[in-house]
Amino acid sequence: MDEALKKLMISNAEISSIGIADLGCSTGPNSLFSISNIIDTIQNLCLDLDRPVPEFRVSLNDLPSNDFNHLFASLAEFYNRLNRKKDGLGLGCGGGESCFVSAVPGTFHGRLFPRRSLHFVHSSSSLHWLSQVPCREAEKEDGVNSAELYNVGKIYISKTSPKSAHKAYALQFQTDFSAFLESRSKELVPGGRMFLSLFGRSTQDPTTDESCYQWELLAQALISMAKEGIIEEEKINAFNTPYYAASSEELIMVIEKEGSFLIDRLEISPIDWEGRSINEESYDLVVRSKPESLASRRRFSNTIRAVAEPMLEPMFGENVMDELFERYAKIVGEYLYVSSPRFVIIILSLVRTG
Amino acid sequence: MDEALKKLMISNAEISSIGIADLGCSTGPNSLFSISNIIDTIQNLCLDLDRPVPEFRVSLNDLPSNDFNHLFASLAEFYNRLNRKKDGLGLGCGGGESCFVSAVPGTFHGRLFPRRSLHFVHSSSSLHWLSQVPCREAEKEDGVNSAELYNVGKIYISKTSPKSAHKAYALQFQTDFSAFLESRSKELVPGGRMFLSLFGRSTQDPTTDESCYQWELLAQALISMAKEGIIEEEKINAFNTPYYAASSEELIMVIEKEGSFLIDRLEISPIDWEGRSINEESYDLVVRSKPESLASRRRFSNTIRAVAEPMLEPMFGENVMDELFERYAKIVGEYLYVSSPRFVIIILSLVRTG
Repeated sequence: MDEALKKLMISNAEISSIGIADLGCSTGPNSLFSISNIIDTIQNLCLDLDRPVPEFRVSLNDLPSNDFNHLFASLAEFYNRLNRKKDGLGLGCGGGESCFVSAVPGTFHGRLFPRRSLHFVHSSSSLHWLSQVPCREAEKEDGVNSAELYNVGKIYISKTSPKSAHKAYALQFQTDFSAFLESRSKELVPGGRMFLSLFGRSTQDPTTDESCYQWELLAQALISMAKEGIIEEEKINAFNTPYYAASSEELIMVIEKEGSFLIDRLEISPIDWEGRSINEESYDLVVRSKPESLASRRRFSNTIRAVAEPMLEPMFGENVMDELFERYAKIVGEYLYVSSPRFVIIILSLVRTG
Repeated sequence: MDEALKKLMISNAEISSIGIADLGCSTGPNSLFSISNIIDTIQNLCLDLDRPVPEFRVSLNDLPSNDFNHLFASLAEFYNRLNRKKDGLGLGCGGGESCFVSAVPGTFHGRLFPRRSLHFVHSSSSLHWLSQVPCREAEKEDGVNSAELYNVGKIYISKTSPKSAHKAYALQFQTDFSAFLESRSKELVPGGRMFLSLFGRSTQDPTTDESCYQWELLAQALISMAKEGIIEEEKINAFNTPYYAASSEELIMVIEKEGSFLIDRLEISPIDWEGRSINEESYDLVVRSKPESLASRRRFSNTIRAVAEPMLEPMFGENVMDELFERYAKIVGEYLYVSSPRFVIIILSLVRTG
C-alpha cells in the first residue's frame, strides 16, 4: 500500500485535495485503522518530498445495515490523534480543518461516489462477499431449485455440490467484481489507484479446502444440531453463504475484460487460521507447535461468528447462536489439532487507466 | 427556498455537479424531506430551463450522537422515489447514478466539508441551539458561579435572571453563529447560497415570552416535582438550556461583522404553538377557537420532549421523564386555555460573496 500511495503522490504533484474511500469499513476498533495508515503514509511522503500535505476527503462505506452510529462515536478520538500527529510533525493548520470524514451507506457493487471524486480506494476483506447467493440465475439456467442446487447439509459450494452450483457461484463473483470495477472506474480520477485485499484461493478448484473449509466446519456444527432436533434440517438445505474465494486467474480475467484498470501488482499471501502470514519454509514449524490453545479456537470461532451471525440469525433464530458457535469452536479445535489449515489472501494494486 | 434555488441555478449555468448540505438533519420521517424538496425543485427548474439535471452530492449533517443508523434505513425508499420521479419526468440515466448521499457527523459550529465543495446549504430549526450553556465565560467575567448566574428555578434566561446571564447568552449566540458563517464561507463556492430558518424573536428583549415561554412552563413542571421531593431542587438550579432566540437585528449584525455573506432576504414569520403560520389579521380568530383539544397539548409536549429529553435525562434520570412530560402537557394545556402564545421563525436567504 505504501508503494501504491507513493506512486500516486509522485504522479500527482499538484494534488491539493485527495479523495480516499474505504469500502466495507465495518464497525469496531479496526474500522479507522486503514484510513489512519493511509493518512500517516501520505503525511510522511509529503514531508519527504517537501510538499504541502493535501486536504483529505475520507469516505467510509459499508452496507446501510452497518452500525455507523458506533463508528461515529470513535471519530472524535480519530480527529484528536490526527491533530496531535500534525502538531508533532509541525504540519500546522490544526483545528481538524484538513481532514473531512463522511459515511456513504450502500453496496459497493454499484455507484457510491460522484464522478472522478476519488484518488485512492481501499478495500480489505470485503470483496469475497457476493451481492447475493446465486440461486436464481442457476434456477433459470438449469431448471433446478435452490434446495437441489447445493448439496444437502452443505452451506457453501463443495466437491459434492453439482457443477451448476460451481458455475453459478463463479459467474456471480465475476458479475459482482466487474460491477465493482466499472463503478470505481467512474469514481476514480485517471491515474487513481485501488488497493484491494480479499480471501481467494491458489488453485483452480473452487472447492479446495483453503477456500471454504471454515464453512464445512460450520455446516458440521449445524448438522449436529439438526440431528438433535435443535434446528430443522430443511433450513440448513435452504441456507447458502454468499461467499466466493476467487483465484488470481479469475481476478485477472475480470479486470482485463472490464478494461478500466491496469494491474500494478498482484500478490498471493497464505495465512494460517490465526491470521499469521505463512512463510512456506517455516510452515512445518507452525504445524509442530500444535495443539493451539483453547483461546485460539475461540478466537477463530468468534471471527467467523462476527461475519456469519447476521446471515445465520434470520434463518435459525437468535436463541441457537450461542450453542451453534460453542459447537463450532469445539469442531474447529479438533480440526486444528490434526490439521494446519490455511487461507489465501489475494492482494491487488490497480491503476485507473486513461 | 425555491427563489434561492432559482437564483443559484441561473447564476451557475454550467453547473454539472451540485453540492447540497442539510445541517442538523436529525433522524426520523422528516429528515430527508428538505433534501427531497431541494432536488425536486432543481429537477423542475432544469426542465423549465431546458438544461441537463446536474449530479447531486448530498451531505446530511448532525452531531455524532444522532441516530444515523435509523436515517440510513430510510435511504432505500428515498432513492426509489428519486428514480420513480426521474423515470416519470423522462430524465433518464436511472440506477440512482445521479444522486450520492453521504453523512457527515460533527458540529456545524466548525468545519465539516472540504473547501469550496458546496453550492447550497440548508438548515432548519437548528441554529437556535448553542454549542454550550455559556456558564464559563460569564463566571470568568463576573466572578459568579453558574448556580448564581441564572435565577433559581429557571432553566433559561428570564426577566429575573441577572443582566450578566442575558449578556452571556447573547455573546455565546454571536460567537456560535459567527463560527457557523465562517466555516460555511470556506465550504461554499462563491455565489453559493444558504437557506436558514431558526427560532428567533421579534423584539429587543431576549426574555420575551415568544422566545422562551416553552422553557418557563417546563421549569414550572420541574419545580412542581421538586416540591414533592421527586427531583432535587439543586439540579434544577444547575440545569440550563443551551438555547437562544435571536432577534433579526442580532443576526444582521453578526452576518455583517463576519462579512462573507450578503443577505438576499430576511423574513420574520410568527407561528402558533401548533406550528401554524399566523396571519396577523386572523390571529384573533385563532384565539377564539380555543380551547384546543387534548391532542394538541399532547403534541406540543411531545415536540418539546423530543428535543429536550436528551438534555434533561442525564441530569434528572430516565425514570422521571414520563412524569415530567405528563405534568408539562397539563401545564401547557392550562396555558393554551387562557393564552395564545406564539413562536417567531426567522428565515434567512444568504449569498456567499466573492
